[in-house]
Amino acid sequence: MQAKALPGFRDFYPADLALRAHILHTWRAVASRYGFEEYDGPPLEPLELYTAKSGAEIVGQLYNFTDKGGREVALRPEMTPTLARMVAARANGLKKPIRWFALPQLFRYERQQRGRLREHFQLNCDLIGEPGPLADAELIALAVDVMRAFGLGPGDIKVRLSDRRVLRTLLLASGVTDQQLPAAFQAVDKIERAERRALAEPLAAAGMTAGTIDGVFAAAALRGLPAVEAALARAPGGEETGRPLRRVVEALGAMGLGEFVEVDLTIVRGLAYYTGTVFELFDAGRTLRAICGGGRYDGLLEALGGVDLPAIGFGMGDVVLAELLRERGLVPADVSSIDVFVAAISEQDVPEVLALAHELRDAGLRVEYALTTQAVGKQLRLADARNARAALVIGPDDRARGQVMLKDLRGQGQEPVDRTQVVERLARMAAVV
Amino acid sequence: MQAKALPGFRDFYPADLALRAHILHTWRAVASRYGFEEYDGPPLEPLELYTAKSGAEIVGQLYNFTDKGGREVALRPEMTPTLARMVAARANGLKKPIRWFALPQLFRYERQQRGRLREHFQLNCDLIGEPGPLADAELIALAVDVMRAFGLGPGDIKVRLSDRRVLRTLLLASGVTDQQLPAAFQAVDKIERAERRALAEPLAAAGMTAGTIDGVFAAAALRGLPAVEAALARAPGGEETGRPLRRVVEALGAMGLGEFVEVDLTIVRGLAYYTGTVFELFDAGRTLRAICGGGRYDGLLEALGGVDLPAIGFGMGDVVLAELLRERGLVPADVSSIDVFVAAISEQDVPEVLALAHELRDAGLRVEYALTTQAVGKQLRLADARNARAALVIGPDDRARGQVMLKDLRGQGQEPVDRTQVVERLARMAAVV
Repeated sequence: MQAKALPGFRDFYPADLALRAHILHTWRAVASRYGFEEYDGPPLEPLELYTAKSGAEIVGQLYNFTDKGGREVALRPEMTPTLARMVAARANGLKKPIRWFALPQLFRYERQQRGRLREHFQLNCDLIGEPGPLADAELIALAVDVMRAFGLGPGDIKVRLSDRRVLRTLLLASGVTDQQLPAAFQAVDKIERAERRALAEPLAAAGMTAGTIDGVFAAAALRGLPAVEAALARAPGGEETGRPLRRVVEALGAMGLGEFVEVDLTIVRGLAYYTGTVFELFDAGRTLRAICGGGRYDGLLEALGGVDLPAIGFGMGDVVLAELLRERGLVPADVSSIDVFVAAISEQDVPEVLALAHELRDAGLRVEYALTTQAVGKQLRLADARNARAALVIGPDDRARGQVMLKDLRGQGQEPVDRTQVVERLARMAAVV
Repeated sequence: MQAKALPGFRDFYPADLALRAHILHTWRAVASRYGFEEYDGPPLEPLELYTAKSGAEIVGQLYNFTDKGGREVALRPEMTPTLARMVAARANGLKKPIRWFALPQLFRYERQQRGRLREHFQLNCDLIGEPGPLADAELIALAVDVMRAFGLGPGDIKVRLSDRRVLRTLLLASGVTDQQLPAAFQAVDKIERAERRALAEPLAAAGMTAGTIDGVFAAAALRGLPAVEAALARAPGGEETGRPLRRVVEALGAMGLGEFVEVDLTIVRGLAYYTGTVFELFDAGRTLRAICGGGRYDGLLEALGGVDLPAIGFGMGDVVLAELLRERGLVPADVSSIDVFVAAISEQDVPEVLALAHELRDAGLRVEYALTTQAVGKQLRLADARNARAALVIGPDDRARGQVMLKDLRGQGQEPVDRTQVVERLARMAAVV
């Protein structure tokens, strides 16, 4: 028998699942405050859904196969194509703007690296039907507020914010031609992972002069809105182009989130379909990979689903986030505990244990009792092992008096309680937690 | 572009997802009251995990394929093999009894039939390490309490309860031999789906006399504990064999759940690995397929994971359950609504809209505002479309007075509120919901 999960896949034992549940719960809670509604699609989709968006080369990274009906299918590597399909199918009936989120588990057949997984959970938020900077700010604020809900502040997390229209205008002003733009974007995208010399070579090969190449690196090195606006002031149409970025920064400032934001033109986001605002969230020390990335993709829904709607979205994975929470001591304590353990002194007390335990559960309490006859001391040790807050001991004498013994397992006291009052008494105790 | 999900797979638009979330939330809440802890495993597992349990014939019903590393893998069709693997890997470190639940999405490549899906969500509960009838009753009570939590009573739902040891004893007493037992179990298992003549043929072929075959059908026709106990009284060792079934019925009675339970020896549960108590939950009119099925499988964990622990478990799917909830009008109303919509009279009011909306969200309220400049009337129509309970209108005059206008969108009133008090005022309003 296979003793292990497949490489790159996780087993979630209860303590692992408690952290996953904390992350998913927080994602849901914050998205809901922004009026976002949850949706989901199938984890298995037609392969062409992904090749239509990303080309045939994506297939090498997918869990894809031919099903028993001869269909080419793949485990979903991302959520956007499913979203595009679902929105396109009901585009007219959906009230705009569409504010939707999903918490899919996603799959990629990545080359095996240390700690690199082949599945992860992701918060996907998309705001569809609004083209303006307030929508961009809204979505970025949602991502930042997720971080704040986990207890992370501006000393822990930074939003690196750019706008592809701004970078494009600055590149054109440096002498980059329209034909050379893709190469220039690619160089900027790789700027933190490669030597300048290695990046400059393909630019020269594309026909750029040394001065233009300097201009590409100078644009990518710009930090902060004032520096970007000063550069734009010298570019044709620059002031107009810079307006949405300024509005995004101002809106985030008005929300009180200004300290999180750093304008940083090295953020390009590899994917070609981004059309405007792009952003990534990083831990402030940048020791980890990006926590979240997203941007505006105004042409993609039309290309994928035939519905021309502007859109902005982001994805935030659970793996880097969990690393950061662990690093900062922000993982909640394991709450594997019950409220009440009900113990029987004699076998004749068992029916009363069953009845009382069931009443307590109906009142919403987490309750256990011994499933075989055993000594009271052993039952109370099980109560301790389950981290119970209270025990109720039922015996023949107390039963004759219409009472049960309530033991406080966190303190040390015990007292008899009337059987008729015990459920109400403990329900109150649970509500105080 | 593919306009549809794969056949047998569901898209969950927000209204669909709301029902799914209601089901999953209720499953979690009730399991937690029973002290059960959530776990999960990978949705993709080594194929041999399933063939080891169910034989090579299971492959015909699976989504299985060879991955890019040459591994034979399958989308999980059930949770028990994953559970067995995980328990075996940490058997010594886990406190007994193990009370675990999971909410996996499961996959089967079933022949396409009307309304038959290829994926569904399932509540899996397993109680591991206790061999006795109190554990059986505990698990059955959990399943029944899930039904009660959805608003279903004993007039809606019945537990059909049997014990394979009891049926075996009655069959042996009717003259069935040990060799003929599998054929007899199979006939009883199919008794509601086939003609008596079709079922009797293989029994005769297995060498049973007409009298023995009558005995098989007579055993399967027994209903209620008294009838079963009367039959057992005439069988060798029958009284002893009947004790666990009686204890299960008595324990469920002590919990106040007696009205749900019907002893019914036709319940066999096809799978060969069940060793004792078996049960299924049905709608009382039996117009739908089974809602839940489970039983005791004391030898399976050893066979699958090499760890000899008694266990009882059940699975409950979301599809039949959702049908029943819809039929009984127990689906919660679509709660797609926000708490507050914040509107701006002029463009100069927008920064204040952003600041106030963000404060309200920090207080836990669900808040929206217009993402483009538009007339107040249009903004309030959007508030209505979002089913907002209140609107806050911010304008230059009110702003100068340090106030905002609060409109009750469910009633008709409006009143100015001090800006400094508006968050507290609305947070209170939200808490009342």
